Amino acid sequence: MAQRLGPELAAVKALTFDVFGTVVDWRAGIIREGQALGAIKGLNIDWAAFADAWRGLYQPAMTEVREGRKPWTKLDDLHRMSLDKLLKDFAIKGLSEEEIDHFNRAWHRLDPWPDSIEGLTRLRRKYPLATLSNGNVSLMVHMARRAGLPWDAILGAEPGRAYKPLPEAYLRTAEFLSLAPSQCMLVAAHARDLEAAARVGFRTGYVHRPHEFGPRAKPKEDTSAFDVVATDFLDLADQLGS
Amino acid sequence: MAQRLGPELAAVKALTFDVFGTVVDWRAGIIREGQALGAIKGLNIDWAAFADAWRGLYQPAMTEVREGRKPWTKLDDLHRMSLDKLLKDFAIKGLSEEEIDHFNRAWHRLDPWPDSIEGLTRLRRKYPLATLSNGNVSLMVHMARRAGLPWDAILGAEPGRAYKPLPEAYLRTAEFLSLAPSQCMLVAAHARDLEAAARVGFRTGYVHRPHEFGPRAKPKEDTSAFDVVATDFLDLADQLGS
Repeated sequence: MAQRLGPELAAVKALTFDVFGTVVDWRAGIIREGQALGAIKGLNIDWAAFADAWRGLYQPAMTEVREGRKPWTKLDDLHRMSLDKLLKDFAIKGLSEEEIDHFNRAWHRLDPWPDSIEGLTRLRRKYPLATLSNGNVSLMVHMARRAGLPWDAILGAEPGRAYKPLPEAYLRTAEFLSLAPSQCMLVAAHARDLEAAARVGFRTGYVHRPHEFGPRAKPKEDTSAFDVVATDFLDLADQLGS
Repeated sequence: MAQRLGPELAAVKALTFDVFGTVVDWRAGIIREGQALGAIKGLNIDWAAFADAWRGLYQPAMTEVREGRKPWTKLDDLHRMSLDKLLKDFAIKGLSEEEIDHFNRAWHRLDPWPDSIEGLTRLRRKYPLATLSNGNVSLMVHMARRAGLPWDAILGAEPGRAYKPLPEAYLRTAEFLSLAPSQCMLVAAHARDLEAAARVGFRTGYVHRPHEFGPRAKPKEDTSAFDVVATDFLDLADQLGS
């Protein structure tokens, strides 16, 4: 199928991936871990609302770093600051430091979407695969080991020392791969991420993840500008001839 | 077997690896690639001498970067500068830019020692495994994909932006792993590398690679200060209970 690729896609030499929402289902994972904690501690919490609130603090926390009001801070530590706030907002009491730390690492224990492993395994036959996530290196390593994600390299925000969608996050990832941006594709389920990557020359692969936000419909995004639009990773592998 | 580990080794949470000479046999690989090139181009060269000379320029090239006389430069590019010099020294002519570039990437195509894959596979069941090499990320990715090296992360000099044995190379690798230096072990076949790692708090695993320099005997090193001394990666796995 490779002969069907146009020259721009044929020039792609590595695939880079957004992870939260694109490769793994963060919402179901946080809900599951919240419910497990709640059962042990006898907490009566709407864990879906908690998960959405935690994710809701994600961009504002990174903005503090992006705009220089906070020095470089790993996502694990930003997650913890948000968690400390939410424990107060949701009036959750009686957790030990060890329990809070374990819950904070729920982001290390997210499960892949059903097609992720098979799709990545197929894509990896043809392309090196690297993370291009805002998650820190140890978070990505723990997640990959638990879930069996076959990355060739853990790149992205922490090695690049810039949170997406800052241009440096993408450009430094390409530089680590010794590739021009046009030889890299970002695969993501989020138009804003792909648009930022495209602005610095990356090729773009949009993957639909309609259940990222649970039962409420995911806002429809304009995908007309992306190089590939796929229903899942298997469809992406088909379209890339891998 | 894990219960036999003393408290210092029991605290180790990740293994980091020197690669050239420790995981892969750089000398045999460079000789093999040189012979292949020589056969095509009709060159009559002592490729063992060439390999030793290329490796001989390795430390001086990095010293230029370490001491700030040269800005950050990937090992691929340092290898190329050394290669350009050696092509003159060995009076090798008639190579195209593509042939020189391909030969320069011989360092991407080195073979593991016979025990490396099985040993790493066993060690990986217990520990995350990361490279802590002076090789750049794309070199390590290409090598791992070709040879089947099961790394969890490609770290070391390029993400840390410091060539070993500078302290920052080790310390930034531990920081990427979100571990204290004392929770990291460097595995290497070179006392100097391990001594530098130990000075910043790493645990140390010395692995004998008696054939690294070919038929000439490898200079005997004092290994008495290292936490583990192993005959190969299988012995290391045995000693770490993995």
